[in-house]
Amino acid sequence: MKKKYRKQPYDVANIRRLLEPGPVVLVSSAWQGKTNIMTMGWHMMIGFQPALFGCYIDESNHSYDMVVNSRECVINLPTTELLEQVIGIGNCSGADQDKFALFGLTTAPAEEVAAPLIAECYASFECRLADTHPNPNHPLFVWEVVRAHVATTPRLPKTLHYRGDGEFMVSGREIATLERYPNQRR
Amino acid sequence: MKKKYRKQPYDVANIRRLLEPGPVVLVSSAWQGKTNIMTMGWHMMIGFQPALFGCYIDESNHSYDMVVNSRECVINLPTTELLEQVIGIGNCSGADQDKFALFGLTTAPAEEVAAPLIAECYASFECRLADTHPNPNHPLFVWEVVRAHVATTPRLPKTLHYRGDGEFMVSGREIATLERYPNQRR
Repeated sequence: MKKKYRKQPYDVANIRRLLEPGPVVLVSSAWQGKTNIMTMGWHMMIGFQPALFGCYIDESNHSYDMVVNSRECVINLPTTELLEQVIGIGNCSGADQDKFALFGLTTAPAEEVAAPLIAECYASFECRLADTHPNPNHPLFVWEVVRAHVATTPRLPKTLHYRGDGEFMVSGREIATLERYPNQRR
Repeated sequence: MKKKYRKQPYDVANIRRLLEPGPVVLVSSAWQGKTNIMTMGWHMMIGFQPALFGCYIDESNHSYDMVVNSRECVINLPTTELLEQVIGIGNCSGADQDKFALFGLTTAPAEEVAAPLIAECYASFECRLADTHPNPNHPLFVWEVVRAHVATTPRLPKTLHYRGDGEFMVSGREIATLERYPNQRR
């Protein structure tokens, strides 16, 4: 069993601190009594207030219909301990199996959406659909993050960043620059 | 003066290897005889073939009008040596000044677009606009990367990943997993 993270409420206006660096995330969903998880690397920040998060979910994913029908999901942030889960979840379909059971992950109830949090992830962001298919040519989604849950230990997580071809970059050192460049904007 | 990277032609179908991990990029543009650069962290991959790249460029940026009018840009990938440039470029407007001159950066000619490559960046991706404003509510752009130029030394660059509040994560170690999990997809 993997470690569960004890998460605290977190200001949704600050979620960029965890998502803007570009980590792989796990998208959990629920629809008609079933849950699912997908691994996702194609996403970006779109706004602070409201907290908007954009992503690409191909129609070939089982999660596509689940999030389109439920209009909800949870974006979960895994750390390096979940490498095997990240890969495994990205390489099988939830149409055939229960990925929580298959990969030893635990559901935790969300507050505002039916999709579950993943207890073993460092952070979880509850999302409601703000715009589906902003472009008819691309399956792009815009989510509003309505509630955020983030662990406080460690201060920052070691995250996985996918390069394709089975290669992940792991988040490295941090540089704080406000002292060096005090005139910079947020 | 910062080091210039000797770049080689690169298959546009593989640009995810550099962009999907979520680094800060420098967007160069040209319009009516002037050039500009902006720092950008809100972007994502959208497709392999054609190679599609999505980003958010707020209308308040001087670069917004330049890329909307020219329908072209170059996405350049800076390394940690350009930290000061990345911050400085993100905190002033090209309406008032020539950012190449101000930040000691060198233009290099692109092959398919008028916007210049930044010689001091590890990689440069020439882009043509595939869709502006895929959503009327958000200034989202979809670019087709039509030509890619990537340095071969080092094998992978040390990139900057922004967290807001003046804090950058630097890309860390690499994990190659295909041997460990041979059934994974690309």
